[in-house]
Amino acid sequence: MKAFNIRRPNEALRPAIQDKINNLTKPKGSLGMLESLAEQICMVQQTLTPTLNHPQNLLFAADHGIEREGVSLSPRDVTWQQTCHFLQGGAGISFLCKQHGFTLKVIDAGVDHDLPYETGIINKSIRRGTRNFRYESAMTLDETDLCFQHGADMVDMCIEEGSNILSFGEMGIGNTTPSSIWMHMMTDIELEKCIGAGSGLNTAGIRHKYEVIKDSISHYSGDKSPLDIITWFGGFEMNMAVGAMLRAAERQIVFIVDGFIMSSCVLAASKLYPEVLSYAIFGHQGDESGHKLLLEALHAHPILHLNLRLGEGSGAVCAYPIIESAVLMINEMASFKKAEVTKYF
Amino acid sequence: MKAFNIRRPNEALRPAIQDKINNLTKPKGSLGMLESLAEQICMVQQTLTPTLNHPQNLLFAADHGIEREGVSLSPRDVTWQQTCHFLQGGAGISFLCKQHGFTLKVIDAGVDHDLPYETGIINKSIRRGTRNFRYESAMTLDETDLCFQHGADMVDMCIEEGSNILSFGEMGIGNTTPSSIWMHMMTDIELEKCIGAGSGLNTAGIRHKYEVIKDSISHYSGDKSPLDIITWFGGFEMNMAVGAMLRAAERQIVFIVDGFIMSSCVLAASKLYPEVLSYAIFGHQGDESGHKLLLEALHAHPILHLNLRLGEGSGAVCAYPIIESAVLMINEMASFKKAEVTKYF
Repeated sequence: MKAFNIRRPNEALRPAIQDKINNLTKPKGSLGMLESLAEQICMVQQTLTPTLNHPQNLLFAADHGIEREGVSLSPRDVTWQQTCHFLQGGAGISFLCKQHGFTLKVIDAGVDHDLPYETGIINKSIRRGTRNFRYESAMTLDETDLCFQHGADMVDMCIEEGSNILSFGEMGIGNTTPSSIWMHMMTDIELEKCIGAGSGLNTAGIRHKYEVIKDSISHYSGDKSPLDIITWFGGFEMNMAVGAMLRAAERQIVFIVDGFIMSSCVLAASKLYPEVLSYAIFGHQGDESGHKLLLEALHAHPILHLNLRLGEGSGAVCAYPIIESAVLMINEMASFKKAEVTKYF
Repeated sequence: MKAFNIRRPNEALRPAIQDKINNLTKPKGSLGMLESLAEQICMVQQTLTPTLNHPQNLLFAADHGIEREGVSLSPRDVTWQQTCHFLQGGAGISFLCKQHGFTLKVIDAGVDHDLPYETGIINKSIRRGTRNFRYESAMTLDETDLCFQHGADMVDMCIEEGSNILSFGEMGIGNTTPSSIWMHMMTDIELEKCIGAGSGLNTAGIRHKYEVIKDSISHYSGDKSPLDIITWFGGFEMNMAVGAMLRAAERQIVFIVDGFIMSSCVLAASKLYPEVLSYAIFGHQGDESGHKLLLEALHAHPILHLNLRLGEGSGAVCAYPIIESAVLMINEMASFKKAEVTKYF
């Protein structure tokens, strides 16, 4: 299995960062989350003058065998239809990327369709959708390994293009189901609290999803290691995102986490390499029931709470201007001394 | 007293707006607050294709007689020092306005200092600070009237310059004290719950602030009408903001509400003209204890929760890109029909 060499940022710089922030012309702590974000980015970049260069949103798309069990309100075809749609400019993530200067990379991690790669979709397809994990492992260990490799390669490509901040999003009808299972099995939070409405299930739909998940878990006979869990219950787009997150951390750049599915990916990544969390900025706490509990389990402080539940990276990209504000704060605000303002606390 | 003619937006257009939003390529409701913001702005502008033109932040500054009672940790001089500092580019609101393309107008509503108006600060000074409302009315009814007029004039100036979205912020050492009083007297929420740390008081400091407020209220002998409350306990920057909000609503443009002090101003405005709330977008729920209760009393859903407590309009301007996202959503996202994506709910 592909290994990553991830270290926490060197703590030696932290006091100097905090000192700089505390001497800006504002009551101490009064810029709240802008201050904690600035501190995190300075730590990752090991500088007092951080930059945000060439942001990109990597949108991994794939289909899921479990979709055949009726766990989603949306039909399977929506995965490929939306995957084709993203680069045409009319999707949710399209206008958000344009608004905030993000390059959007759409990656076929395993969509069940002949996709028009000539339109710019990047072909990293592992297989036309995962197997149905109600009956067998969604993928093989080799396929997980390949996901990690492709995810890492995508991050390398972005870094070579000059990026030092990335966000990760997903498209995959049915993928709240594996996310709920990952969350339950890797946090021990009871299953019912990990399951929500996805793209809009009613109570009966959620009940059915719960039964399918329960049945799937009861047939699982693996070793319950994080690697085995994500291989048995994973999605290609999810495991590729895990690989991408780990590679971003290895190469010491920050990345923005989107909604429930991407949060379950960072959970998995952190079970493999706890140090990855130093590099994660949580963009949004969504509507999906369980997302709040998952973020709490990760000790995460999401930037936004806008009741989004679209995926695609929308919650991450929406949060970008706040991250930009944090960087501008530490670079552009004057110190009390420079501004000749009486220091107040 | 200056009167305003404020009407709620015409409801006839609402179903068409909702229909347009529900047919964008996303699960229904999945863009959460972006959808409700788009609906509000469409309603105010009475259009299905809203625009945001020339955003400006009006920052009203003034001093408070009650500051002499030691209710703030920061010295009075910080009001004029910061008021001079805003247009130099090094303050919190300076980089935020620059980031989001806001013009920053700094208005002297009654700062206790000789200000350098040649630097661009707009002189609408009523008086060098309010009177100390522990012993007498902070201002006269004529002064409140003049505040309303100046606030309205500032909004008119912005609209003539092409603006259809404004935010309002403030600077005034001591002004969480009148805000707490306004909140208590206009919502009946018990006084202790309306009082917080301001720019950084400790427990003893908050206790002292509480005693000063209690004593001030016990000497008040007015008729408890909103107009009398804001005249007795107001600040020039606050009453000018109330006038500005009422004028924005009268001229049917949206405005963004900043933190605790501006929320108390919109409360006062809504007690005078309840229709004003149709035009208010709440930017941020801050750290100041009581702000959450105040927003609940206003049935407000703030966009951000970033633990800011700076004032100046910072929470309002920080929220602007989210408002922009809402407008881009309704203008740029494709419909299911246009995108040839299966409609899913």
